[in-house]
Amino acid sequence: MRAIEIVGIAETKFGKAEGSFRELAVQAAQAALEDAGAHPAQVEALFLGTFSPGTFIKQEHVAPLIASELGLNNVPSSRLENACASGSTAFLSGVMAIAAGAYDAVLIVGAEKMTSTPIGETTSILAEAADWENESSVGLTFPGAYALMARAYMHKYGKDRAFLDAVAIKNHHNAMGNPYAQFHREITREDIAKSVMIADPLNLYDCSPVSDGAAAVLLVASDVADRFDKPGIRLLGFGQASDSLALYKRENLTSLPAAQHAAERAYKMAGVGVDDIDFAEVHDCFTIAEVMATEDLGFFGKGEGSDAVLAGATGRDGKIPVNPSGGLKAKGHPVGATGVSQIVESSFQLRGEAGERQIEGAEIGLTHNVGGSGATCVVTILGKAE
Amino acid sequence: MRAIEIVGIAETKFGKAEGSFRELAVQAAQAALEDAGAHPAQVEALFLGTFSPGTFIKQEHVAPLIASELGLNNVPSSRLENACASGSTAFLSGVMAIAAGAYDAVLIVGAEKMTSTPIGETTSILAEAADWENESSVGLTFPGAYALMARAYMHKYGKDRAFLDAVAIKNHHNAMGNPYAQFHREITREDIAKSVMIADPLNLYDCSPVSDGAAAVLLVASDVADRFDKPGIRLLGFGQASDSLALYKRENLTSLPAAQHAAERAYKMAGVGVDDIDFAEVHDCFTIAEVMATEDLGFFGKGEGSDAVLAGATGRDGKIPVNPSGGLKAKGHPVGATGVSQIVESSFQLRGEAGERQIEGAEIGLTHNVGGSGATCVVTILGKAE
Repeated sequence: MRAIEIVGIAETKFGKAEGSFRELAVQAAQAALEDAGAHPAQVEALFLGTFSPGTFIKQEHVAPLIASELGLNNVPSSRLENACASGSTAFLSGVMAIAAGAYDAVLIVGAEKMTSTPIGETTSILAEAADWENESSVGLTFPGAYALMARAYMHKYGKDRAFLDAVAIKNHHNAMGNPYAQFHREITREDIAKSVMIADPLNLYDCSPVSDGAAAVLLVASDVADRFDKPGIRLLGFGQASDSLALYKRENLTSLPAAQHAAERAYKMAGVGVDDIDFAEVHDCFTIAEVMATEDLGFFGKGEGSDAVLAGATGRDGKIPVNPSGGLKAKGHPVGATGVSQIVESSFQLRGEAGERQIEGAEIGLTHNVGGSGATCVVTILGKAE
Repeated sequence: MRAIEIVGIAETKFGKAEGSFRELAVQAAQAALEDAGAHPAQVEALFLGTFSPGTFIKQEHVAPLIASELGLNNVPSSRLENACASGSTAFLSGVMAIAAGAYDAVLIVGAEKMTSTPIGETTSILAEAADWENESSVGLTFPGAYALMARAYMHKYGKDRAFLDAVAIKNHHNAMGNPYAQFHREITREDIAKSVMIADPLNLYDCSPVSDGAAAVLLVASDVADRFDKPGIRLLGFGQASDSLALYKRENLTSLPAAQHAAERAYKMAGVGVDDIDFAEVHDCFTIAEVMATEDLGFFGKGEGSDAVLAGATGRDGKIPVNPSGGLKAKGHPVGATGVSQIVESSFQLRGEAGERQIEGAEIGLTHNVGGSGATCVVTILGKAE
């Protein structure tokens, strides 16, 4: 496949934002172009990942909306949706189009505007990413779905919730070094113990927040990368896989087969193994999800991710730093932006531009973006360009 | 670019359907596989085009939902949305993925379930495909937008509405021969004159209906086409282009620049000219749209499409048959299905399997699928495989 690099990256500060959907998307996109030293006329297509603007802001058909606002005259623009994996799905669409030889340079944008919607409605909108007919409509919203997974994990491996606390504390700690993160506040076991229960055993600090935000990358064929200012970050491999939306159809609740399949494909394509990965940005929509991710990706054995986080193995100085950005938990989770933001954050790391959150000597990074409760998973493996 | 063929095609009967979104999508997809003599295990990825299931049926994340229902174990699945051009956008995503060499065989599905939503809500949901902040929210829904175009056209070229009647009458006539069409009823100028005004000058018969439906194609690399039963239909060329959602940003209202750009790219890629096209399936969401399409595609000069339809030039036996299927007007317009259905209908024609609606000797066909009021346009050119 044609070699592909990321030459421009940007993201907005996540959280409750003043800007509208279009303003956030445009802001991230323009900043990514500026980062690359690129002109809009160099962009040959736009791929926009977003989950549910039709319900959040009454606006569908957002790809040409943003293309037009950016002055990308008449270029093809397409919107991708795969729930919380919409951003990385858009990224892979751009990859395919460049690999096909259709374009040399495409812009990927992920965005979501969530905070203008009443919170009760937001939970209901998010539940449309699960199987509405069979599960969401009768009350199984996402906190409930992940609570079932947490309970199954704790039961199967005989764990108490201390490992969940450790994920939240680590990610809040990591976000302290991330200027784009929604939360800049260390949390303690006491804070967690005092917080409100959301869906037993998950309490407030086990859940990623509702956020506004956008992220963008300029993706180009390696053969034209020298037209741009920044050293490219190379896409070494990727994998995408699907599964049933409904939990009742899954054989077990303690791992996500789509994540395992996606990872297997990405490792194979990249020609690297688990031990070659220097850090990972994974989809910790709930604390339990990060632990399952570290097992599905092969960093730890089944049931061992919980002890690993307690032992500090996923900390910034650990064996395999996980979510040095703060993750969805503390960086925030503007749904459509998340997958693109993971790639932006990984690119900052690989460029050595991650500031306080820099992983020393990082040469290969992995992103893991999940849609719903695991019906979609996209894994990418990124490295410094040669 | 790698040569690509369509080897399996199917669509459901359009109209008010008993089946749910998932049932319609699965029905079309399974029938397309059966048509090709393919097994689900031969499908390497799914691309699903749909406009707004989040609002119509409270279900997003529909790609893995349908992949899972079809038993496509763990293959990547992605949903594409570009308003009424969602189906053809999904088609092009499949094209890119095969051309990239990522897959040899992918399934494209377009689907929408619209009739379970109250009609007032439907108009509002559809208006989310226009610029909500600047136009839809203050009342410019799609009948109004296309009425402005019709009025501008009639004023600019000094026409009365007789040519609009001719489009509706022709397309209702054509649909008589299409078993998948929503309407099987000839209409007359008298019917039209008596019908209710929707948005002056457009009345009921100028508007495509609200419909349920699904369409699917199995798309494969030509180098593996012999694994399947049916003679392939070759993708000769394609083009996609964007424009502003808002009408107030357009320089004129009597043509769609995105359609002109998309057509120009498709003709160039296919290496064919306007005169090589034997028939076209175009996006007649409103009667005026078909006339503008025939001019944007180069079949007729500016302002001449109106006389052409009156003279019968776009009839089944005319110089360039347009919408032999009945078009959106009479075949129906389940939004996300439409672009895929145009490709299915064109493939029936090129196989010589179009029954009563067969265009004799058809060797090259064109599809023209528009999103919103022209913010997206996708054109494909299809021909018999060598």
